[in-house]
Amino acid sequence: MFQHPSFLFTHSRHFLHRRRHHYRHLSTPPLLHRFLSTISHTLSHPIYTIWAANTGLGKTLVSTGLAASSILSSSTSPSKLVYIKPLQTGFPHDSDSAFLYRKIPQILLHRNPQSTLLASNQTLNVSIPAAKLKVGINLSDEGQSSKNGFGDFGYYEEKKLGNGEEVGSELICKTMYAWKEPISPHLAAEREAANVEDSDVLALLKRCLEIGVGSNGNGGNTVMSLVETAGGVASPGSSGSLQCDLYRPFRLPSILVGDGRLGGISGTISAYESLTIRGYDVVAIVLEDHGLQNEVPLLSYLRNRVPVLVLPSIPKDPLNNLMEWFDESQSVFDSLNEVMMSSFQERIHRLQEMPKKAQEIFWWPFTQHKFVPEEKVTVIDSRCGENFSVHKVKNDGCITQMFDACASWWTQGPNAALQIKLARDLGYTAARFGHVMFPENVYEPALECAELLLQGVGKGWASRAYFSDNGSTAIEIALKMAFRKFLVDNEVLLDISHDNTVESSIELKVVALKGSYHGDTLGAMDAQAPSPYTGFFQQPWYTGRGFFLDPSLVSMHDGVWKITVPENINSENLILEDTSFKSREEIFNKSRDDSSLASIYSSYISQELQLNSGSRKFSHAGALIIEPVIQGAGGMLMVDPLFQRVLVKECQNRKIPVIFDEVFTGFWRLGVESAAELLLCQPDIACFAKLMTGGVIPLAVTLATNDVFESFVGDSKLKALLHGHSYSAHALGCAAACNSIKWFKDSQTNPNLIPQQNLLRELWDTKLVEKISFNPAVQRVVSLGTLFAVELQVEDYEAGYASLCATSLLLKLREDGIYMRPLGNVIYMMCGPCTPPQICLKMLQTLYTRLNEFRHEKVEKAREI
Amino acid sequence: MFQHPSFLFTHSRHFLHRRRHHYRHLSTPPLLHRFLSTISHTLSHPIYTIWAANTGLGKTLVSTGLAASSILSSSTSPSKLVYIKPLQTGFPHDSDSAFLYRKIPQILLHRNPQSTLLASNQTLNVSIPAAKLKVGINLSDEGQSSKNGFGDFGYYEEKKLGNGEEVGSELICKTMYAWKEPISPHLAAEREAANVEDSDVLALLKRCLEIGVGSNGNGGNTVMSLVETAGGVASPGSSGSLQCDLYRPFRLPSILVGDGRLGGISGTISAYESLTIRGYDVVAIVLEDHGLQNEVPLLSYLRNRVPVLVLPSIPKDPLNNLMEWFDESQSVFDSLNEVMMSSFQERIHRLQEMPKKAQEIFWWPFTQHKFVPEEKVTVIDSRCGENFSVHKVKNDGCITQMFDACASWWTQGPNAALQIKLARDLGYTAARFGHVMFPENVYEPALECAELLLQGVGKGWASRAYFSDNGSTAIEIALKMAFRKFLVDNEVLLDISHDNTVESSIELKVVALKGSYHGDTLGAMDAQAPSPYTGFFQQPWYTGRGFFLDPSLVSMHDGVWKITVPENINSENLILEDTSFKSREEIFNKSRDDSSLASIYSSYISQELQLNSGSRKFSHAGALIIEPVIQGAGGMLMVDPLFQRVLVKECQNRKIPVIFDEVFTGFWRLGVESAAELLLCQPDIACFAKLMTGGVIPLAVTLATNDVFESFVGDSKLKALLHGHSYSAHALGCAAACNSIKWFKDSQTNPNLIPQQNLLRELWDTKLVEKISFNPAVQRVVSLGTLFAVELQVEDYEAGYASLCATSLLLKLREDGIYMRPLGNVIYMMCGPCTPPQICLKMLQTLYTRLNEFRHEKVEKAREI
Repeated sequence: MFQHPSFLFTHSRHFLHRRRHHYRHLSTPPLLHRFLSTISHTLSHPIYTIWAANTGLGKTLVSTGLAASSILSSSTSPSKLVYIKPLQTGFPHDSDSAFLYRKIPQILLHRNPQSTLLASNQTLNVSIPAAKLKVGINLSDEGQSSKNGFGDFGYYEEKKLGNGEEVGSELICKTMYAWKEPISPHLAAEREAANVEDSDVLALLKRCLEIGVGSNGNGGNTVMSLVETAGGVASPGSSGSLQCDLYRPFRLPSILVGDGRLGGISGTISAYESLTIRGYDVVAIVLEDHGLQNEVPLLSYLRNRVPVLVLPSIPKDPLNNLMEWFDESQSVFDSLNEVMMSSFQERIHRLQEMPKKAQEIFWWPFTQHKFVPEEKVTVIDSRCGENFSVHKVKNDGCITQMFDACASWWTQGPNAALQIKLARDLGYTAARFGHVMFPENVYEPALECAELLLQGVGKGWASRAYFSDNGSTAIEIALKMAFRKFLVDNEVLLDISHDNTVESSIELKVVALKGSYHGDTLGAMDAQAPSPYTGFFQQPWYTGRGFFLDPSLVSMHDGVWKITVPENINSENLILEDTSFKSREEIFNKSRDDSSLASIYSSYISQELQLNSGSRKFSHAGALIIEPVIQGAGGMLMVDPLFQRVLVKECQNRKIPVIFDEVFTGFWRLGVESAAELLLCQPDIACFAKLMTGGVIPLAVTLATNDVFESFVGDSKLKALLHGHSYSAHALGCAAACNSIKWFKDSQTNPNLIPQQNLLRELWDTKLVEKISFNPAVQRVVSLGTLFAVELQVEDYEAGYASLCATSLLLKLREDGIYMRPLGNVIYMMCGPCTPPQICLKMLQTLYTRLNEFRHEKVEKAREI
Repeated sequence: MFQHPSFLFTHSRHFLHRRRHHYRHLSTPPLLHRFLSTISHTLSHPIYTIWAANTGLGKTLVSTGLAASSILSSSTSPSKLVYIKPLQTGFPHDSDSAFLYRKIPQILLHRNPQSTLLASNQTLNVSIPAAKLKVGINLSDEGQSSKNGFGDFGYYEEKKLGNGEEVGSELICKTMYAWKEPISPHLAAEREAANVEDSDVLALLKRCLEIGVGSNGNGGNTVMSLVETAGGVASPGSSGSLQCDLYRPFRLPSILVGDGRLGGISGTISAYESLTIRGYDVVAIVLEDHGLQNEVPLLSYLRNRVPVLVLPSIPKDPLNNLMEWFDESQSVFDSLNEVMMSSFQERIHRLQEMPKKAQEIFWWPFTQHKFVPEEKVTVIDSRCGENFSVHKVKNDGCITQMFDACASWWTQGPNAALQIKLARDLGYTAARFGHVMFPENVYEPALECAELLLQGVGKGWASRAYFSDNGSTAIEIALKMAFRKFLVDNEVLLDISHDNTVESSIELKVVALKGSYHGDTLGAMDAQAPSPYTGFFQQPWYTGRGFFLDPSLVSMHDGVWKITVPENINSENLILEDTSFKSREEIFNKSRDDSSLASIYSSYISQELQLNSGSRKFSHAGALIIEPVIQGAGGMLMVDPLFQRVLVKECQNRKIPVIFDEVFTGFWRLGVESAAELLLCQPDIACFAKLMTGGVIPLAVTLATNDVFESFVGDSKLKALLHGHSYSAHALGCAAACNSIKWFKDSQTNPNLIPQQNLLRELWDTKLVEKISFNPAVQRVVSLGTLFAVELQVEDYEAGYASLCATSLLLKLREDGIYMRPLGNVIYMMCGPCTPPQICLKMLQTLYTRLNEFRHEKVEKAREI
């Protein structure tokens, strides 16, 4: 397929050098923001990926036909076509970009001898063996020093159709990486010792995709970019990653070249499904006619939602210049082109209308709609691992990535690889089980999930798993369990009436900490201290049914970790010891049990429980409920673990069942699988949700000891725990949980895991955390596991949940590509258990810089007042 | 590949006829239980499907090698190998079963000249054109009359290796359907006018799979069945259904023959994924070596969880008898065989241990564990549309289908096609979005879902969608909405304190109906009348915060629909008119608004509201909450729609916001998309969940009018609705809902839909329903939409929720393949919106029969007492 249409050349060596300079920067990847993702692409014109169901199905012919159709489609104004071949093997003999470079001028002249066109073709990185093969290039003379086995040898060629200076259409062809052997890129890269990392491929692709942007102004000019993959959809790229995974961060709309041969229906459908279960939108399928009408079953499978176009049979004669075939195919390519243009327009239209529509019909939770004008609505086009891809309207629109630093309400954990794994396994589970009835039944995902829970976060104490849908329901169940256990242990408090119903003159209450949060259903609310969330106007039925204690808090300030003991506890000023610590580890040290502070905690708690647990009194403490170590929604408050440990001990001594609400803290959020490990004590009941499924689907579980379970076993169904939700232990949620639980605790898949220690390595740079804690605008800092939180200094009049003081800071961080949400005057960043510490560092650096600006702004403002 | 190893034949015509008789019944499908699924297969020995990534990859060679390995693996005892080729094209020239029939004796003799074997090959149904081509058969003489273009021409051959009467190993080869043209079965079927329906293929396959059962006794004999598909995994079968969809009801474990060629990695991975997202377990991949080491990236993709075996390169010479190749491949096939055997053993082991494990670590909701011994636990291996596949231990174990007639706690709706569609779209959505933050954001599935809800169940009244996770949370949100609306409309009831917090001296209550159920979280519980679910021992915090009215109920008894008006309403005995109806439709007639019963309802309700809504009083009705038409958990109680309509009107007249709890009734459960359509009035707020996602994943929504929404808009965040769950509007749930909502209301996909009427056709045979209502053991019957319910007559001492009276009846129905669960003495069957009425009929007939037996049993028992 290598031809020399040299008659078209207007090639000059001088010219070549000038242009090379112009394009050279493309061949040397910039100092890549390797860690904070910078994936983005324009929406100023359509960009499509051309995939194929297999190798040898005529992908390049489709690219060529499409390119010609696109260039010819605009008869009045010049158009631009950017063709990118990221990975090319068999080079230089095979070069798809060279094929387009040669063929398209031919087609244009064939159709219209008056055509004008400026065409160029550049090969940016060439393996040394491939470069040696290329004729007319003297390696030592032209090549620059090789990088990872590649060189930029200035392979640039250019030609012009038509006369003089007239600005005509433009064809820009780029091959990003080329290898000599005509085999799969991963093999060629290995054999030719010319490797390229996925991140480099993506970075260079990003820059190639920028070529068409803005250059044509805002006229009616046609611009289109095509990215042609190598081999089939799941053929490995150079690093070995499957191409459908490699290019996923861009999630470009796709054209699939199908297989018209015998057996081709199956291959085409399977390839379509591989793209689909990676989140790609396939806009059209195009295939060569082999007389088998493969399009008929394909259309039936697609329920006519995706067009299938049929190309005439391709001549097999290698000497055929294909002009006739391109003529015959013209109408098909024009149709395909139209499909692509209109799909692009529809997408743009939808992206643009989404904020307004959302504002009109959504009722967002925890949101004052009056404060969210249309322009504040974020359009999320997709997510890939820890990153959102959002639509931005500026510069003709673009799709750009942001780090989801609020972890989408603390649910997120998966990296890109786990996300794809979850997607496939959710597909499998939905196909195998959908959802099936749980009570009295067993099915694999539920059983495996329960096993993993009891071997993991419940290890050493829990013996039963009770599934529900979210943290709030898990808490309601936990309360029912705890109260029953308490009542069974304290039967004296019960009256058994003549009709065998049970009553009591005692009102049961929970012991809980101020600032804690357990969910928004009434039972969970009632276990919380009064707050703006719980007012009469929010829920007239709320009555805080608890004894709410003031906890001792810990945080870093000016580089020092320090405990703040509330007045109630320290009313007699007994604390003499220093409550500051050299390191965070010290705070968690078990030896603190012997400190005088431990005794002070103990006597304070005893006193409180004494006051509230006398059976003579109307109210009785029937359960303890705490968020171990960190009270999340309360403002990322770190509670002194010693205080919580003493509290647990005192309750268990009094047979008050202990509930750990690990909805937020569970599954590595705090650097360990269960936050109970940090407290060094075990509950009777614990609730998990959020991260349990890898942040993909709601599922919650309440774990309990055998003693708790036994208090529901008896001869009457009425003694059973009569609480259930339709989707109890739904297969999808359990399957997602099985995947995630295993993924996070396997050092093969989670590089952050310190083997044997069941601990994540430090994700937030200790030095930088310290530096931030010195910022005068910062009141306190907490960093633990995947969490980094900062409480901003606020004047009294700004305080409270409704405080908007952090908003300007967060808006700037969003511009930096970090999506955060405030908790009043507390801002936080949360990564996943697998997020590389380098990304955390980058975010921390960005925050550090922005916080310094913020401080100066505050000073300025203070002066103004 | 057609060879004549006739030297092996010990063929005799006499013998052939005898055996034909033996096998003949296989060729004529029995009067198939076409409607109540009878899909099942044995677990007495391994059965595998052999799939391929493409055509021409050597699937039959793999079957042959495996078969030989299996037969040879047991040197001491005879073994049996059943090979089934369901669909064969290119017949008789191509016949894969004939290939095995010829080749395996060759291999056996080659390995060991003393081998003994009884081999047979039968082709059951042959298209007329294919039959005409077959040599030596006289059509008019041998053929029986053709059926759907097929005939059974007695194509049976048999041969024996070894001497005399010794019982050796056995090879049984079957081709189920054969066509002449060497093209895809769907094309061949069309061109040769020989069609076969999917249900016939499945029925015949089921019978072929029975061949190996039991015949070898319980010795250590090796039995294996192989089912070889045609072409690639997603190649169409004869009806046009993709084979991976066609065979899905059996969900046999699978071997995938991959592609070792250039581009083959992609095709193999895609094929693997197509199987996976249909719920198949691929146990191993096997591929031919082409020197490209395709197994390396495949293993990396599979994370070494699935073995990939490599076969030596296959000789291309058509005259090669392949003996050398089979020799070289022997160890690979032996390994593959081992993998298959051990995977089978693991599966059996797991299926057997599951009930015990489940019993040890699950805590089932609403279940008294003491009543569920190990043998009562149902192991659900998978579901396909409306059917479970369950493991039964009898007869060496089998997997058999049951109709999920409790719709898995009323969540289910999908048929098999929708389930696969949902699986694919859930995969896509998980890959594209995972879950992303909802507040202040917009993404496609959430927006489309909200649009569909407002255009569908909310049409004409709702303007906002508030997402949550389940019915219970949706209700808690609805209550918060309703109370706020009420308070805003009745500001006079509020005290605004000095610090701007809002209080009230009024206690707000709900108006609700006795027997209603709204969920198990405390807020939802408090909106229900006291019941065994709500006792102190269950939830000490429960206080029924409602005015609970007695509803008028409707049901059929002795063939007549009749209203039962409670005493409270009819205290003055004013009802003179007849309260029975000729048809169910009459009950829903709007003209009843003018009846005297309407006035009686109206004055009863006015009086109740008057009593409870005076602002002088301590309590005030702040919301009405009802389950429209059917109170589900209360025992499938049908409430007089007139009563509910009058109640709604009276409340709305008094500015008491009206909540419809459509968690159970919504989305076609009652034959219309929203039960509000049956009531002929609209709420201010409505809750949906369960069937909304097609019963695959938890998602709930609370819809509200604009007026309700406006009562939360203001200048303070504290005025907003501060209630949220982590996975609010999660993308997976919304995507599933979009799919299901559209699927159920599209007559292209839902054949039960009466176009233009937005109504499902009658699913439960009216005559049979009437007959059942005459059964003396039956107290009342309700049939509406997808629901059919029967209340059994019980003596007083048996009554109540804990009643176990229905258990024996339900156990028998489970033996009949109908999985039901009781609600006390109420039993019900629930189908999906797309379930064919023939299936409902079949179930109803079964129930009718069992009810008659039940009645007689009861009579017997009564006599004994």
